[in-house]
Amino acid sequence: MPFRAPVAEFRFLFDHVVGFNQVAASERFAEASPDTVEAILTEIARLTEDVWAPLQRNGDVDPAMLENGSVRTSKGFAQGFQALAEGGWMGLSAPESYGGMDLPMTLTSAMNDMLSSACLSLALNPLLTQGQMEALEHHASDDLKDLYLPKLISGEWTGTMNLTEPQAGSDVGALRTKAEPLDDGTYAVSGQKIYISWGDHDFGGNVCHLVLARLPDAAPGTRGISLFMVPKYLPNEDGSLGEANSLRVVSLEHKMGLHGSPTAVMEYDGAKGWIVGEPHKGMAAMFTMMNNARLGVGIQGIGVAEGAYQHALAFAQDRQQGRTPLSGKPGGTGAIVDHADVRRMLATMRADVFAARAIALSCAVALDMGKATQEAAWQARAAFLTPIAKAFGTEVGMRVSETGMQVHGGMGYIEETGASQFYRDVRVTAIYEGTNGIQAMDLVGRKLADGGEAAFAIIEEMQGLVEAARGHHDSLAEPLWQAVETLREATEWMVAQEEMNRRFAGSVPFLMGFARVFGGYAHLKAAMAEGGEGPRSRLAAFYIARLLPEHVGLLAHAVAGDEDLYALSVEDLTA
Amino acid sequence: MPFRAPVAEFRFLFDHVVGFNQVAASERFAEASPDTVEAILTEIARLTEDVWAPLQRNGDVDPAMLENGSVRTSKGFAQGFQALAEGGWMGLSAPESYGGMDLPMTLTSAMNDMLSSACLSLALNPLLTQGQMEALEHHASDDLKDLYLPKLISGEWTGTMNLTEPQAGSDVGALRTKAEPLDDGTYAVSGQKIYISWGDHDFGGNVCHLVLARLPDAAPGTRGISLFMVPKYLPNEDGSLGEANSLRVVSLEHKMGLHGSPTAVMEYDGAKGWIVGEPHKGMAAMFTMMNNARLGVGIQGIGVAEGAYQHALAFAQDRQQGRTPLSGKPGGTGAIVDHADVRRMLATMRADVFAARAIALSCAVALDMGKATQEAAWQARAAFLTPIAKAFGTEVGMRVSETGMQVHGGMGYIEETGASQFYRDVRVTAIYEGTNGIQAMDLVGRKLADGGEAAFAIIEEMQGLVEAARGHHDSLAEPLWQAVETLREATEWMVAQEEMNRRFAGSVPFLMGFARVFGGYAHLKAAMAEGGEGPRSRLAAFYIARLLPEHVGLLAHAVAGDEDLYALSVEDLTA
Repeated sequence: MPFRAPVAEFRFLFDHVVGFNQVAASERFAEASPDTVEAILTEIARLTEDVWAPLQRNGDVDPAMLENGSVRTSKGFAQGFQALAEGGWMGLSAPESYGGMDLPMTLTSAMNDMLSSACLSLALNPLLTQGQMEALEHHASDDLKDLYLPKLISGEWTGTMNLTEPQAGSDVGALRTKAEPLDDGTYAVSGQKIYISWGDHDFGGNVCHLVLARLPDAAPGTRGISLFMVPKYLPNEDGSLGEANSLRVVSLEHKMGLHGSPTAVMEYDGAKGWIVGEPHKGMAAMFTMMNNARLGVGIQGIGVAEGAYQHALAFAQDRQQGRTPLSGKPGGTGAIVDHADVRRMLATMRADVFAARAIALSCAVALDMGKATQEAAWQARAAFLTPIAKAFGTEVGMRVSETGMQVHGGMGYIEETGASQFYRDVRVTAIYEGTNGIQAMDLVGRKLADGGEAAFAIIEEMQGLVEAARGHHDSLAEPLWQAVETLREATEWMVAQEEMNRRFAGSVPFLMGFARVFGGYAHLKAAMAEGGEGPRSRLAAFYIARLLPEHVGLLAHAVAGDEDLYALSVEDLTA
Repeated sequence: MPFRAPVAEFRFLFDHVVGFNQVAASERFAEASPDTVEAILTEIARLTEDVWAPLQRNGDVDPAMLENGSVRTSKGFAQGFQALAEGGWMGLSAPESYGGMDLPMTLTSAMNDMLSSACLSLALNPLLTQGQMEALEHHASDDLKDLYLPKLISGEWTGTMNLTEPQAGSDVGALRTKAEPLDDGTYAVSGQKIYISWGDHDFGGNVCHLVLARLPDAAPGTRGISLFMVPKYLPNEDGSLGEANSLRVVSLEHKMGLHGSPTAVMEYDGAKGWIVGEPHKGMAAMFTMMNNARLGVGIQGIGVAEGAYQHALAFAQDRQQGRTPLSGKPGGTGAIVDHADVRRMLATMRADVFAARAIALSCAVALDMGKATQEAAWQARAAFLTPIAKAFGTEVGMRVSETGMQVHGGMGYIEETGASQFYRDVRVTAIYEGTNGIQAMDLVGRKLADGGEAAFAIIEEMQGLVEAARGHHDSLAEPLWQAVETLREATEWMVAQEEMNRRFAGSVPFLMGFARVFGGYAHLKAAMAEGGEGPRSRLAAFYIARLLPEHVGLLAHAVAGDEDLYALSVEDLTA
């Protein structure tokens, strides 16, 4: 089934749900006119439909392989990447001074969504490269920026992030890779890094590794970490490629999915590196890259969900099994899409994709507005929504791709059908760039450290809309009002817990509950924009009646505290 | 991590939760004394731990292959099967007159649970063979029984079920395979069947196919279907193997998981078959086999969940990442199991495995009591619980194996870790033997056709226990009382809907909601048996505070009706 990029959906969300008009009205993003946005979305849609989507299956059946120390990528991936680069799309949100287009992250987010639907394993490469550009832009010296940014923006070179070591996963502070200062101001980087996505490829150009390592005088833990640029080939001053650096791909991981994306074990053996930012301040620089990537990974989940949804819908419109409730009636198709449970599954998929996309794009708008206005409130909103966008987007990716297999029945379990690839590929998005559990701890910890200011601002915004909806949209507004109230109480409970672990004990259900309610708000906005009649209003009614009530269970779980958890001892669990 | 069969858990459930004492007290199952039960569980535990669990990974890395028209199975599978057969365990619940032990299905269910934890792909073979024995016992002629049952019970021969054809999946009535009567009273069976699990193997002996087909004078749909025994080799009268029948394995499916279980496309080309039961009554006979298999598939989900839980728990006790809230405190292990969110994940897994197992074993007890007493109420209870056991057990299999990967972090996505095999293998259990959507339609359709009598009997039983718990266990009893009330209302709503499609529109959430509440009831029973203090009481408190509240969202969804679903047109979904 060919992928159709949901351009109209993005346009609707931009115009009526996530407030993109504010971004476009800002001086900073004055170029993001409706015409420009339309033209760009349309171009990228064509690229993903015609060039990228046909590559998706290649990643699975012809996976990236390590051959004689170099990575050979899946058939067509190099051409797909080149087509993206040639469109100039790698630098969609990168600084104009280095060759980028300097357009909003909201637009880049829509691009990443389409790229992820079409071919997730390839889409991971530009996502990491975008993150690297952002880290360099904010933290690197002018020399490094002048050398690397134009190459990354043009797509000649690509970027990776090297955090994890075998003993240092979620606990980044436990890393051991060393960086010894050399006389010329560069560093000799030595150590092993794991889970390095796109650690090597055969697209040509350079592979630019941003590597976390410790200087000799470094304090233990995260305060003693610095960030280094360690390129595969040492660049000459004119930007041409010089000799090979002292690093290599040791092996590629054998993963459950995402086989088109080479996941490398990297060995650095006194490799030449340049420091990015201040000594011992590497975590801050890395967080710039990670925050960008976290939103991007949430969007990967949503993109895969979109692909899985379209795939299942096409199957359900084609497959005939038994008499349906609409057999012989107007609107009846004779296919399984007319069975109540199949339509329920498809409507759930679509309603959840909409909710997750609204959250992710709201986050992107807040990022853009934070840049455009430099206002702390926008920046705090973006920071608050980032872990929600990441964890809920990837959760929706898992749920929707699982349901997509279910719609297919037995065929869903057969690899040739393609439904299971979405399911296998998307699974890692709930894990990488900080597991969803880590996202939830970030949300209830750091992101509520403002006493809940950013959270309550969103809650009040939701309540304001619900008030405005009363009278005209009561059947939607009433249950949403209750839900927002329950969310407010749960948020107040969270903020009131001084013992951080009491928050952590309910952090994942809190995050998911927040997303459920925010999703209802987004659906209500969509219905109101339509005047309460039309397909979006019908989808909103479905979501609010059937999916929104999940917030009750989630938020009850969220505020359960930690006594019952630790009352259950390890012996209890092991018995 | 070695698998440890949860024998103590079965004993506890038997004795205190699912009422196995009634089974043991019946004349029919007088041999199922506590000593016998203990001895059998212990023997099977040893078999699964020592012989089967080491085979699990072989199924994945050395999958079943079609070689020169015959299936070559994974390394060690033939020996594993033989060890099971030699223990006499194939016939644990089969008639004594044919060499079985005639012990309760409850015991066989515990066995299937352990087999599924240890090696799901191999466990599917005895499960199908058990179902075939049951179908033959109830529907076949004495000649067929005399010939086949002893061989199946001894494990010399194995059984398959052949329902599906490319155009006939959930809609079995659309099948086209033909059976032409021959002069000698046998039939010539011709057609193609797909998704035939264990359609062939190299264990030796015969592969006995039960095949649904149409006689020449058959009515269309399910009323025109008959059942035939079509063996791979035509047996001689003395039970020795004669010439090969006219059937073959065309190909094996390339599935997402369960690679150790060969899933065959079977071609019958005038193959010799013997009718099982009356002409045109094949569906009834097949349902005997399917009902057995449906409970068994639910138990497969639970068994995999147990395996995934043990695997994740061992990892969490070993893996160290960062300071934990218990670092330096009594009971602190230093490992990630002490992080609140990891402990929440593990407790959720364990609490859900307990709930699902209580449902499945309650269903098995009802089956046994139905046989022992021939009382309609027990039989109706078993029939009602079967789709819940199947769908909820497999849902728990998916959720728990997903969480198991999450506990592992990045390593969960690497195949060598083993966490992802549980996830890939178990996925099909929510699809085969009737998708979970089909189970839910069965529940709210056929299984509520008694006006809800069986359902309300269970609800009253739950309410009775909650009443008895008041005073001593108020913190558990109060929320459960509310939940049972909500379930009663949802069940009343279901029964009141004359338009069947209004039930179907909420059938899956209704089934899951029923299971959620029944799970709370089982946890309360466990806590009461412990006097309210101890590990089971702590787990019950966890479940009732954190997981039971999910029933609110599920049951609100269940009673939403079908208007909003069909208001969403196919065009709405496609737009």
